[in-house]
Amino acid sequence: MPDIHPRTLPDVRLLGFANRTSVDKATKWIDTHSTTLVSEQVSVEFAAGRVLAKHFVAPADAPPKDIAVTNGYALRSIETIGAGSYNPLLFCTQEDHRALKPSSTVLVSSGTPMPQGADAIASFDLARAGTDTVELIGPVTRGAGVSHQGDEAREGTLVVGNSRPLRPSDLGLLSSFDLTEVSVVRRPRVRLILTGCKSSPNRELGDANGPMLHALLARDGAELEVTTYAPPEQSAIAELIARPEADVVLVCGLTGTGPDDVAPLALDAVGTLSIHGVAMQPGGSIGMGSVNGVPVILIPGSSWHCLCAYDLFAGRLIRRLGGRSPQLPYRIRHVTVGRKIVSSIGNVEFCQVRLVSGEAIPLGSAGSGGLVSASRAEGFVLIPAPLEGYAPGASVAVYMYDEVDDMEGKCT
Amino acid sequence: MPDIHPRTLPDVRLLGFANRTSVDKATKWIDTHSTTLVSEQVSVEFAAGRVLAKHFVAPADAPPKDIAVTNGYALRSIETIGAGSYNPLLFCTQEDHRALKPSSTVLVSSGTPMPQGADAIASFDLARAGTDTVELIGPVTRGAGVSHQGDEAREGTLVVGNSRPLRPSDLGLLSSFDLTEVSVVRRPRVRLILTGCKSSPNRELGDANGPMLHALLARDGAELEVTTYAPPEQSAIAELIARPEADVVLVCGLTGTGPDDVAPLALDAVGTLSIHGVAMQPGGSIGMGSVNGVPVILIPGSSWHCLCAYDLFAGRLIRRLGGRSPQLPYRIRHVTVGRKIVSSIGNVEFCQVRLVSGEAIPLGSAGSGGLVSASRAEGFVLIPAPLEGYAPGASVAVYMYDEVDDMEGKCT
Repeated sequence: MPDIHPRTLPDVRLLGFANRTSVDKATKWIDTHSTTLVSEQVSVEFAAGRVLAKHFVAPADAPPKDIAVTNGYALRSIETIGAGSYNPLLFCTQEDHRALKPSSTVLVSSGTPMPQGADAIASFDLARAGTDTVELIGPVTRGAGVSHQGDEAREGTLVVGNSRPLRPSDLGLLSSFDLTEVSVVRRPRVRLILTGCKSSPNRELGDANGPMLHALLARDGAELEVTTYAPPEQSAIAELIARPEADVVLVCGLTGTGPDDVAPLALDAVGTLSIHGVAMQPGGSIGMGSVNGVPVILIPGSSWHCLCAYDLFAGRLIRRLGGRSPQLPYRIRHVTVGRKIVSSIGNVEFCQVRLVSGEAIPLGSAGSGGLVSASRAEGFVLIPAPLEGYAPGASVAVYMYDEVDDMEGKCT
Repeated sequence: MPDIHPRTLPDVRLLGFANRTSVDKATKWIDTHSTTLVSEQVSVEFAAGRVLAKHFVAPADAPPKDIAVTNGYALRSIETIGAGSYNPLLFCTQEDHRALKPSSTVLVSSGTPMPQGADAIASFDLARAGTDTVELIGPVTRGAGVSHQGDEAREGTLVVGNSRPLRPSDLGLLSSFDLTEVSVVRRPRVRLILTGCKSSPNRELGDANGPMLHALLARDGAELEVTTYAPPEQSAIAELIARPEADVVLVCGLTGTGPDDVAPLALDAVGTLSIHGVAMQPGGSIGMGSVNGVPVILIPGSSWHCLCAYDLFAGRLIRRLGGRSPQLPYRIRHVTVGRKIVSSIGNVEFCQVRLVSGEAIPLGSAGSGGLVSASRAEGFVLIPAPLEGYAPGASVAVYMYDEVDDMEGKCT
């Protein structure tokens, strides 16, 4: 496919990037090109990790009436005053669960409605059951064992927000309101085009990025439209970029300054290349643009560059489209720097770190490293563009790769 | 099915728990009844979140030889001394990538092997390319743009441990060593028996626990053998418990002190009920035992009790069987208590909290609440049995429900 549009950005091949876009500006580009997708209905059963299309408000009081929250004998608390093991008070046991007679009790189970007139539950250890009677050997506080109508939520109040993925407990809650389906944000459909991936020093044209990107896309809630291996040719890549149907197109590989790096030309040929080159390391050869309104992200093929560029930009785009938090999906741990972190001024740099005795120890200088370091690291530090790094003793935020880290040190 | 074994634990129905097992002792029971399962082969592509059967050590140096990690001109750094924009030094460009001639350069791409004799890469912004020559306008440091053989990992050193689920980047790394399959710990097969679930005040016999437990089991890496709804009868439950094939049997519902709470009797009839009643709130009516060597956990049917009992014990069992960290799978945030947390002495209690201005605000007293509170809470605090709670200003660990929490406050 020939170059039919005038190029808006310079061809960097064999020349290098004369100017790179700042991470902040590139982030703004992502944010202006990602509006939360429309909603779809899914079964509550399969809604974990999805984001509600809108807040869920209680359709009724919860609980809907006063209920027992323990097993025991429902009674009037005022009638238990003075009860003790030396002064047992006698109550009649009543079968009818509707209205409680004076000096009577009703055996109730947790979750069932309170009999009318009863205001407390005596637990079994306070009661000695006879045939038709119960001896109470201690007083019961008003409200003991009872959850009152609306205690948990009043009708019309918000119970599950739409600013986070649904938790397992949310599914239980939505089901408890008799919902079987919910309206959730549609998952972004991603077309993944792998091309000329120099993914590994062990293979010329590897697919190490395929499995990694699939797992990252799944983590961020994307749905894979298709994964295609494209030959390293501008026309072939351009043709795949321009196909309709996807919400996002990711091209992995051929983004850099080498003579074969034709992915930016391919996007430019069929759409708009808006950004090429971002002031970050690794991943700085990332490109962004669009074709027919669909955002297209060009991700470097070198695996560690690929991971960082994905996380910071492509992942953010996908998370935003899916209604999720745009932030990096790693928990943050604030720790002290244990050994100098070296970074170069002008780029946002990723520095992989191990946590040793609670201190961050860099695995090489910022921007360096690869997937081996990523596997050995507990997480990474992002060093802002104006800084030369961090001195020992500085406090830094570490983005932690794993959700739990109690195994710290076990894998060394 | 009749009661064929002598009961080893008292029947608590209508009597209450005379003694409860401590959380520590019950945790030890879980740990002695959960040995990591055997391994199975899976495609690297589908291995995210799985745990390796054993450490993966580098089968070769990584990188396997000196490679370029940037695009540019490979050369001898010593020959660039003195180069500057007023003193450009001329190099011949050489096609042959094998051995570098004196005063020559070879155009290389990131990821490709270094020509013999070259020890650095000049990036394109330091070079002015002619037809067969390159003018260098600045000196290049030895090692610039090069990753040396074994820089990332020496052959035989550990690169991915087996003490954590595989990360997306691990899949890339394993693929880069040409692995297509890996040996991982088998997923625990769980039989889930839902019975008499008083899961919701809105329905008598609901299945709110089904969707919630399915999501929890998926989170903890279990494979669902089957979910069965059992009638609230001892013989029916006993028959389902005793069926072979599962690694773990979970019975949800009918664990308490009410007249219908026959799950403990059902387990006792076909296996061993080792523990019934744990000093925790909610979830204290949990039971543990085994049938033919298979651990059986009896989980309370009330949803919030169900969630807590699952997380602390059933989930731990499943996480251990699957080779995962036994810890609660929530990240921990250390915060200050903003309003008094009230708890009763003698029980480990769950207290749901919101984080307001970085302080933990309890949603009711410890042990109280339900799924509405669980959805409104950012997380929970576990109050040890000997404590009456926490005063404002105390420092507590909050188990955070969500992985990222930058949206704090947005859903209120």
